[in-house]
Amino acid sequence: MSDLPNDAIKCLDKGFVRLVDSMGGDDAIVQSARVSYGKGTSKLSQDRGLIRYLMRHRHTTPFEMVEFKFHCKMPIFVARQWVRHRTANINEYSLRYSEARDEFYFPDPNHIEFQSAVNKQGRMGEVDKKLKQKVQAYFKEISDRSFEIYSELNEAGVARELARAILPVNLYTEWYWKNDLHNLLHFIGLRSDGHAQYEIRVFSDAMASYVKKVAPFAWEAYQDYVVKGMRFSKIEQSILEQKLPKRVLSDIQEDISYKLTASLHSNKPRDEKDLYPLYKKQGGSDSIEDFNLKWASGEIEVENVRELREFKSKIESLK
Amino acid sequence: MSDLPNDAIKCLDKGFVRLVDSMGGDDAIVQSARVSYGKGTSKLSQDRGLIRYLMRHRHTTPFEMVEFKFHCKMPIFVARQWVRHRTANINEYSLRYSEARDEFYFPDPNHIEFQSAVNKQGRMGEVDKKLKQKVQAYFKEISDRSFEIYSELNEAGVARELARAILPVNLYTEWYWKNDLHNLLHFIGLRSDGHAQYEIRVFSDAMASYVKKVAPFAWEAYQDYVVKGMRFSKIEQSILEQKLPKRVLSDIQEDISYKLTASLHSNKPRDEKDLYPLYKKQGGSDSIEDFNLKWASGEIEVENVRELREFKSKIESLK
Amino acid sequence: MSDLPNDAIKCLDKGFVRLVDSMGGDDAIVQSARVSYGKGTSKLSQDRGLIRYLMRHRHTTPFEMVEFKFHCKMPIFVARQWVRHRTANINEYSLRYSEARDEFYFPDPNHIEFQSAVNKQGRMGEVDKKLKQKVQAYFKEISDRSFEIYSELNEAGVARELARAILPVNLYTEWYWKNDLHNLLHFIGLRSDGHAQYEIRVFSDAMASYVKKVAPFAWEAYQDYVVKGMRFSKIEQSILEQKLPKRVLSDIQEDISYKLTASLHSNKPRDEKDLYPLYKKQGGSDSIEDFNLKWASGEIEVENVRELREFKSKIESLK
Amino acid sequence: MSDLPNDAIKCLDKGFVRLVDSMGGDDAIVQSARVSYGKGTSKLSQDRGLIRYLMRHRHTTPFEMVEFKFHCKMPIFVARQWVRHRTANINEYSLRYSEARDEFYFPDPNHIEFQSAVNKQGRMGEVDKKLKQKVQAYFKEISDRSFEIYSELNEAGVARELARAILPVNLYTEWYWKNDLHNLLHFIGLRSDGHAQYEIRVFSDAMASYVKKVAPFAWEAYQDYVVKGMRFSKIEQSILEQKLPKRVLSDIQEDISYKLTASLHSNKPRDEKDLYPLYKKQGGSDSIEDFNLKWASGEIEVENVRELREFKSKIESLK
Repeated sequence: MSDLPNDAIKCLDKGFVRLVDSMGGDDAIVQSARVSYGKGTSKLSQDRGLIRYLMRHRHTTPFEMVEFKFHCKMPIFVARQWVRHRTANINEYSLRYSEARDEFYFPDPNHIEFQSAVNKQGRMGEVDKKLKQKVQAYFKEISDRSFEIYSELNEAGVARELARAILPVNLYTEWYWKNDLHNLLHFIGLRSDGHAQYEIRVFSDAMASYVKKVAPFAWEAYQDYVVKGMRFSKIEQSILEQKLPKRVLSDIQEDISYKLTASLHSNKPRDEKDLYPLYKKQGGSDSIEDFNLKWASGEIEVENVRELREFKSKIESLK
Repeated sequence: MSDLPNDAIKCLDKGFVRLVDSMGGDDAIVQSARVSYGKGTSKLSQDRGLIRYLMRHRHTTPFEMVEFKFHCKMPIFVARQWVRHRTANINEYSLRYSEARDEFYFPDPNHIEFQSAVNKQGRMGEVDKKLKQKVQAYFKEISDRSFEIYSELNEAGVARELARAILPVNLYTEWYWKNDLHNLLHFIGLRSDGHAQYEIRVFSDAMASYVKKVAPFAWEAYQDYVVKGMRFSKIEQSILEQKLPKRVLSDIQEDISYKLTASLHSNKPRDEKDLYPLYKKQGGSDSIEDFNLKWASGEIEVENVRELREFKSKIESLK
Repeated sequence: MSDLPNDAIKCLDKGFVRLVDSMGGDDAIVQSARVSYGKGTSKLSQDRGLIRYLMRHRHTTPFEMVEFKFHCKMPIFVARQWVRHRTANINEYSLRYSEARDEFYFPDPNHIEFQSAVNKQGRMGEVDKKLKQKVQAYFKEISDRSFEIYSELNEAGVARELARAILPVNLYTEWYWKNDLHNLLHFIGLRSDGHAQYEIRVFSDAMASYVKKVAPFAWEAYQDYVVKGMRFSKIEQSILEQKLPKRVLSDIQEDISYKLTASLHSNKPRDEKDLYPLYKKQGGSDSIEDFNLKWASGEIEVENVRELREFKSKIESLK
Repeated sequence: MSDLPNDAIKCLDKGFVRLVDSMGGDDAIVQSARVSYGKGTSKLSQDRGLIRYLMRHRHTTPFEMVEFKFHCKMPIFVARQWVRHRTANINEYSLRYSEARDEFYFPDPNHIEFQSAVNKQGRMGEVDKKLKQKVQAYFKEISDRSFEIYSELNEAGVARELARAILPVNLYTEWYWKNDLHNLLHFIGLRSDGHAQYEIRVFSDAMASYVKKVAPFAWEAYQDYVVKGMRFSKIEQSILEQKLPKRVLSDIQEDISYKLTASLHSNKPRDEKDLYPLYKKQGGSDSIEDFNLKWASGEIEVENVRELREFKSKIESLK
């Protein structure tokens, strides 16, 4: 079992995540996407724009072209959740081959909480100090006693693969874990979520910090289009359709028409006189006077043209 | 957690394997192979022959067309080895959602053995009675005490996902496990092997007994062509090439020529006078007098013609 | 190659999809979910409710417990898109083993369209009759001529694996294709989408019709929570936050409070006098007079309580 | 579509394989194996020895820790076989997005052969010059005509995704293909085999040459323990057991005893007087006089001790 390496991020009391190696980054995503879409991608001249487009439209295969390999050390109960992500390649420390080391997870008082009444699988609510101390004492008792017994059986020559069966799941284990970026983002999306168990979240967050460095555009796009934002079900959408006043929706579309005009103007500056016709073409319905007033207000931000158009059609569908 | 269902095979002291459902059997293998090979398979008129041919030549995809779903209950340390087979679909009992039950694995005295000195990951050699009793007492002590603490914390309202971290890996867990026949056979090949840990072997053997019933020809072929038999490495082969006298190899080939003749005769009976020419055509070199003596001896068995030819060419390569 | 079987759904001019076998349905999803969540699922007493809950919260593994096996016949260019779904098991008709048959896809005039200018990978706009006839004539010309040459080379004894290399990708091929429900739904989500190529969409739709029969609740939930409804990105969400008037959002939440009250009342009927307090508890802010008016209006529909609560918190986050 | 890059290996008339990137090599295999087996691997002090041990005993996961990414260009019918290896990540040039280029595979006269009568899926036997010329003329005819039609339809504005359906499978396509070493070796084992179609074999061989450079020990071990050497089925083994004279087997074992003695002596040189006892311990049965004669002969080679012991037990099982 490894002690904390210099370049690792410490997780929980004795665990860590360390990026051992990686292959490619944002550049590799773009490179492989351009093979797929050939000349078709020439207009998306900027890497960031292309990566955002791929993420928004769930073109996932280019993200599979980037690979990460981590060295991680975590309690067994965390490893048990982690291993369910089946696309990863894993080499784990084996207690059949090697001896266990006296390293167990003891929860920090801040993370000893009550069972959530709302969420079957969560925690909620501060536990009093006395109960916290009891929890800690119990973790220590079982860890110490089980390791004492394990050591005695081991010295007596009992088969390691059998003796290890009395060790609790807060024992630390260790592995090499390799996965591609698409599946790694999916892992982080699930395990850095507020509903994930705290003890796996710290490992997921640590991996996330490496991803952010190696593939910053991909990371940003994943946040903007998959993790953040919101989804409405068919049922919820139908309620919104009934309840959102048409006037409000038209106002939002009007606003998008302004943003579209500003964005197109920013990409390729045009004459003053061409701006109002451009705005009309984007679906704007303000009079030229109102247009001039709003345009001069300086409040119109520039955005991604494709995305604004997609947004406009979503708003349309709510009407 | 489930008690032993009626139709389950008991494994270890409290575990089991139960076949919940399956899709297809030997017939489904044949059906899908015939789609692939079209008219090309018409000569392999018998299902058993086709299945053996597919297995011998590692045409694995038809075996993927059969699916098995098992309900299993096993200790956590067994589940941890099991889960590494990544093609399976799994639904496991969750200790975040549900309470643990007081069910722990206590090894039978017959399976408490010493660490193998030869095999880093095995057991070997009888342990004396006193040590066995000590092992059993220790398993009981840790199981009882950890469950007592777990129950107390649970009642005090501590989050289940945290309290469970003190339970040892001999605690029983439970899952639904679904896999296709190709990957299931691979699992059984590894886990019913003598080098696998005893505690997972019993589960693998139980699943094997179901496979044998559902797809008997596939099971038989897997034993004959993958599990049993033997493999010589390039290095070993080169030693055999140097050391096996050519005379011995020629005798074996001669013997195969007789078997081939008998097999072809058995498939399509021929006139007495056609037998010696047929034998010569199979590479036989005995004189007609010797042929008649041997042929009349009644010791020549009938085999699969294709396989005998493949065998003959292997022997040739050793010369 | 197979002719259209009796129980198959015809697709395109000569292709089909046929459900060969399946394992489990809605019941199998529920069965495996209950193993995972143990007693924790007891309150979700109804199968439909549980399945909808699992789908809404992306608990995907129970849907992997259902398996489908299809027999399909489609043009090679369709098979080439299809095969990229890597979780499936496939046995395809092999042109190395077997002879090709004279079966080519000829597009129906209704589906001969222009290249879309907007969508790099789509069609758009009616083609005139003359061009349609030309397309059809060309498909026929290349198909006929290539098959003529293929047949001649085949008769001359040229290796099949080589001769087939001149056949165009509108040639029909055929396979057995087996996948689990989770991955099958993902396939249908992508391939029955309006952006998918028409020629694969008909096959996806045919498979969808089988799924609907075998697992109707899962199908319905997939439509409601994954396919239909809408997603707003982080960027779009921030525009909505700026532009949706707080008053409008409060009105929607008010409406949800009424629906919640009605739903809870429907699950467990209460006294008249308890209704207004119940409504207040759900976050309602109308006065008792307004409450009585609205309540008596009979316009309040009953919905899923959990989902309404989730919806309410989404609306809250937009404020 | 890409022209032949400088650093690529040309395959067939217009295709290529190019190693775009790789992560790790023999060192990464060793690194991850040492995490799994901990101190247990300390005795296998040399990387080459450890890699060979892992390969011999089918410990496949460390080989999954090495990743390769290739850029390849090949005919569609080759891509169709290739894509069946499902563990790879792929980004292929899309004929929905981009225009096809006039690049078709024309077989070299040397590889135009007859259909094999023995092997349903192979070629065999020289084709006469006239037929070869005819094959080439036909490939040219169909390629030219189909591309002419494709171009005409393309210019007329017909949707690319439809127009491409008349192109034959000897059209070149192109992709990025990423896989781990374990699965890459499996691919090469199947596709560089004599039974694989010539047109995919050249691509497999090209990838093999890169593997040999990046992970030479792993490549060597794969050849020695998986590709080369030979396997006897249970049936064949039982014939060998009947037919191999016990005397011959004893001679081979005797020879292994000498090799073992020499190997152990080579690892840790011993006194003259200790050699005969060492030889007896390895199972040797020659008299001391015979031992001295043979030992002095200088013909005894040194080998891997573990492997010799395994070999000896295989020979024992044949007795």
